[in-house]
Amino acid sequence: MKKYLLIITVLTTLLMSSCKEKQFTPLSNTTAKPIVEAHEIDKIEPPFWWKGFKNPSLQLLVKHTAIADYSVEILNPNIELVKVHKADSPNYLFLDLLIKESAQEGKFNIIFKKEDGSQLTQTYELKARSKKPEDFIGFNSSDAIYLITPDRFKNANPKNDSFENLNEKGINRKDNYARHGGDIEGIARGIKYIMDLGFTAVWSSPLLTNDMHSGSYHGYAITDYYQVDPRFGTLQEYKQLALGFQATKMKLIMDQVANHCGLEHWWMRDLPFKDWVNYQEHYEKNRETWNSDIVKRSSHRRTTNQDLYASKKDKKEMSDGWFVKGMPDLNQRNPFMAKYLIQNSIWWIEFLELGGIRQDTYPYPDKQFMSDWAGAIMKEYPNFNIVGEEWSSNPLLIGYWQDGKENSDGYDSNLRSTMDFAMQEKIVSGLRNDENWGSGLIEVYDALANDFHYTRPLDIMVFPDNHDMSRIFTQLNGDITNTKMALSYLAVLPRIFQMYYGTEILMNDFEKPGDHGLIRTDFPGGWDGDAVNAFTGENLAPEKIDMQNFVSTLLNFRKNSKAIHTGKTMHFVPENNTYLLARFSENETVVHVLNKNDKPIDLKLDRFEELGLEGKTLKNVFTGEMITWSNTLTLNHKGSYLFTTKL
Amino acid sequence: MKKYLLIITVLTTLLMSSCKEKQFTPLSNTTAKPIVEAHEIDKIEPPFWWKGFKNPSLQLLVKHTAIADYSVEILNPNIELVKVHKADSPNYLFLDLLIKESAQEGKFNIIFKKEDGSQLTQTYELKARSKKPEDFIGFNSSDAIYLITPDRFKNANPKNDSFENLNEKGINRKDNYARHGGDIEGIARGIKYIMDLGFTAVWSSPLLTNDMHSGSYHGYAITDYYQVDPRFGTLQEYKQLALGFQATKMKLIMDQVANHCGLEHWWMRDLPFKDWVNYQEHYEKNRETWNSDIVKRSSHRRTTNQDLYASKKDKKEMSDGWFVKGMPDLNQRNPFMAKYLIQNSIWWIEFLELGGIRQDTYPYPDKQFMSDWAGAIMKEYPNFNIVGEEWSSNPLLIGYWQDGKENSDGYDSNLRSTMDFAMQEKIVSGLRNDENWGSGLIEVYDALANDFHYTRPLDIMVFPDNHDMSRIFTQLNGDITNTKMALSYLAVLPRIFQMYYGTEILMNDFEKPGDHGLIRTDFPGGWDGDAVNAFTGENLAPEKIDMQNFVSTLLNFRKNSKAIHTGKTMHFVPENNTYLLARFSENETVVHVLNKNDKPIDLKLDRFEELGLEGKTLKNVFTGEMITWSNTLTLNHKGSYLFTTKL
Repeated sequence: MKKYLLIITVLTTLLMSSCKEKQFTPLSNTTAKPIVEAHEIDKIEPPFWWKGFKNPSLQLLVKHTAIADYSVEILNPNIELVKVHKADSPNYLFLDLLIKESAQEGKFNIIFKKEDGSQLTQTYELKARSKKPEDFIGFNSSDAIYLITPDRFKNANPKNDSFENLNEKGINRKDNYARHGGDIEGIARGIKYIMDLGFTAVWSSPLLTNDMHSGSYHGYAITDYYQVDPRFGTLQEYKQLALGFQATKMKLIMDQVANHCGLEHWWMRDLPFKDWVNYQEHYEKNRETWNSDIVKRSSHRRTTNQDLYASKKDKKEMSDGWFVKGMPDLNQRNPFMAKYLIQNSIWWIEFLELGGIRQDTYPYPDKQFMSDWAGAIMKEYPNFNIVGEEWSSNPLLIGYWQDGKENSDGYDSNLRSTMDFAMQEKIVSGLRNDENWGSGLIEVYDALANDFHYTRPLDIMVFPDNHDMSRIFTQLNGDITNTKMALSYLAVLPRIFQMYYGTEILMNDFEKPGDHGLIRTDFPGGWDGDAVNAFTGENLAPEKIDMQNFVSTLLNFRKNSKAIHTGKTMHFVPENNTYLLARFSENETVVHVLNKNDKPIDLKLDRFEELGLEGKTLKNVFTGEMITWSNTLTLNHKGSYLFTTKL
Repeated sequence: MKKYLLIITVLTTLLMSSCKEKQFTPLSNTTAKPIVEAHEIDKIEPPFWWKGFKNPSLQLLVKHTAIADYSVEILNPNIELVKVHKADSPNYLFLDLLIKESAQEGKFNIIFKKEDGSQLTQTYELKARSKKPEDFIGFNSSDAIYLITPDRFKNANPKNDSFENLNEKGINRKDNYARHGGDIEGIARGIKYIMDLGFTAVWSSPLLTNDMHSGSYHGYAITDYYQVDPRFGTLQEYKQLALGFQATKMKLIMDQVANHCGLEHWWMRDLPFKDWVNYQEHYEKNRETWNSDIVKRSSHRRTTNQDLYASKKDKKEMSDGWFVKGMPDLNQRNPFMAKYLIQNSIWWIEFLELGGIRQDTYPYPDKQFMSDWAGAIMKEYPNFNIVGEEWSSNPLLIGYWQDGKENSDGYDSNLRSTMDFAMQEKIVSGLRNDENWGSGLIEVYDALANDFHYTRPLDIMVFPDNHDMSRIFTQLNGDITNTKMALSYLAVLPRIFQMYYGTEILMNDFEKPGDHGLIRTDFPGGWDGDAVNAFTGENLAPEKIDMQNFVSTLLNFRKNSKAIHTGKTMHFVPENNTYLLARFSENETVVHVLNKNDKPIDLKLDRFEELGLEGKTLKNVFTGEMITWSNTLTLNHKGSYLFTTKL
């Protein structure tokens, strides 16, 4: 059986390139006779699917006026129509399909028949998979991820800035909460810049349609789960971007949102079930006067997910409340919603051949659903990766969400990666605070010592900043040296490294710290006519160029360092305002020192003898200078020092 | 076999009372003929032992000039001399004995013979155990523990205040770091007062000899592990105290120190092995000029115990460094030291029929030894309890030390109870800080939410203060209401509750916050001629009497509340400056409210419907007032409210 599957897989792979060309050719799997295509149904989702998944089931959402009056027939003996579910709204049907092993790629028709004899025909396509499941390699600790807010990165195609049929019109770069015009082509044009900086992956904030009346630029109020926002580009452009990433061995990470949609999502005008979103009745009753006072917002008390003593009411207020009034909270306990979201994620992974998913607001959806969702994905793509966002500096919560943790409530998340907000907080306070018994570098050291709690520290994502918090340069009070120290320390940790776009040119939010619009400032050079161009260096201030070079040196070194990717870790109790951390693999030792001393010091090396470096030559990664590891190490200035035995 | 052991146990128990009378009667187990007693050896430890332990082995430390020149013989066929170990010093022998099942209680002689024919005789006694192992019930969540610094509680016997043969002479109540004269008899005379306050157990700081030149009052620099400090009383007084506790169903908890001894410990003048204490060579070389600069002190970086990345050197500097210059760090990796400490603990449990042990500075000794130590005790006394002191507000470390935790390094501590410094910190900051999104009562709520991390929260000890930190009244800036709120909240938690003596009369250290001598102030009325007497209430300020009454009401209620002892817990996200926590067993629900509102408020009760209290009558524990649980609960003043359904 296994062998048979293997042959199928190999054949599929061999056929892949040719199939790609033919993917819109009508193929029946019983005969070669082409079918007559028809597209008479308003909406069917997912819009197409693939054969060859471990899970042979597929549930189609069908939306069409009074579709509940129709019976359904599938004209393909290899696709079994297992069940037709009516919804609460007469305008939806949910079709349970079983894709038999004998099914071939190609198109087939689904017929909807009414008692009066009238019928509707919808052509549906089953594609061949273009890649082996195990070849979907998710981001991991060898990666450095560049996080982009696409509206603010680069406007490569000004033609797609505004659409008359969308709610929010035009762009306005003077308004930080308006659209600015950045797009998918902008990311594509930026790949070289990003690669030169040493990054190996890009996580872009959501690119799907956010057809909201205002504030739609950030992408987290999705109004269509299968459509690229026209202001970012087309589905085909997204696909091309993905192919571009593949060609350069970069990983493309998609930002997905299972917790909520945007209030202008098409289904909000005709909800399939009475419990499609949480507090649905309340919303429908107050739709006309909907505002921030009326909405039942989440309590945001996220500890209720873990707390053995939390009341059911408090759990519900956390999980079911809406994030904000413009983001209806999806009810993942509705099994059709659950399937919809799982299939949507798989659809995007398969279509874009993704290198990972970042899942927004991880603790907010129903947590059993999140486990099922991640489990379903990881079952199909065993080497994939997903990182979930829980904004907590409590390692107990960070650890709880990582798969394999033996939680007292028996919960297993199936989630490979979580976010290290704890370390983010500590690198900032550790650098800002004076050196004392319990403050300064010891905070960072102690934070890393907590790693014993995590199932797999290597799979946790660490970052100096992201799109929701003050820029690291702002958090560190505009201190360039401290900013470099934070970046280099985080980049050598046993972690996946992530950085926000523009941090390499000291982007900041001093003017109004923490202001989201300001944090997500336009990347200079991304717009025609920009006086400063950070892509080319034109008119870029010297300290910004210097920081670009610093990041580039750091991450290009990281890119090839097995010691950093998967090596062991040893660190030493901070002393004399210095903190040494080492990573080592069989053939390489990397030594990183955070030095807070303004005046030169000679660091005695006998404390570090366990590193086995005595007498060895090491290269200073930042200066290229060679040193011999013996007796003392001279640290001339405050800052970070990075040495490697790989010369 | 099991049945046979049971019969033996029952017989032993039956013989118990009579044996007690006869315990100094010389009995041989082979004949009734009395042995000739002789005590020619300088020191033999443990000084006597018992038959009937699960572990039949016993290792005797024998100290006598040139004892290494002697061979050894035991004149009792039921005691096998398995091995005689020489030490590095010629003045020690360590004898491995095996106590056969056939051994009877009574005395027998050990003969030490030299080649020249001369010999020494030492009589040793094997006692019958007076209690079944399973009847040693350790403190648990039904207990409220009163912590005493014995030198400062009550000087009931001024005759034992000073001894000419001890290094520190006399008492000086004007010096907070000198001896003040409190003693065991003082504790005995205080039992009624302590019981009236509602406490069910007493943990006294160590009562063993601290024959130091200064600062010996606190008891943590033990110079003889088998001797009661004469300034506290005699071994017989300690035993009588223990019997007094038994008679009143109170539990007596002994404070033990496995990490270090006092510098004036007798063995420091002639150490049995070269590695009896850590940094021994360094000490012996610098003995004459020994001072704070010379001593290798512990780094006190306790995370090295758990940290997967800590260097061996850092682990050693933490574990092997001396606590302070006057406290030699015992090397528990020396197997003779390890056995010595384990037997010493068992000796005291058995002799005093203890209700628990508090182990000092838990993360400092060799951690594998600590696991062996706790394991050996818990194997002999399955229902006993030990609490280990790790002063950390990091729940990861608190959880690590509790037995049953699945630690990533495989460590199982065998330790049933740990100390909740995390909650202590949070109740203080939660009450002191203003109510905001992330500060105030939410800090306390979130701290309790971390309980999901612990193997058994019920077995963790919580406390408002102890002998090493500022008094809770000081920590709360002298706010009586906040102090009451802290006490009542901690007392209703799913925890073992512990409080420091004098907190019930608002003892404080405002004059010099955190000063150890000041924290451990004399309890008023403990000394003849004290103008104020807190035992009787004489001249005691009204607010102190009020606090005594508060504690007494609280803890006498707690004493009989199964809901608090072992009930389930539910708490609710703080709102409107109030935080409600409930404990419930089958027949009782206890509701505790922390209310920070100065003005009266009506708390809406529909949020709490899961408690199932609607329409029920509850009693306000502090006022006796009856209320009906319906619609709203009026809270008239800032403070804590405690209600019970047990009327």
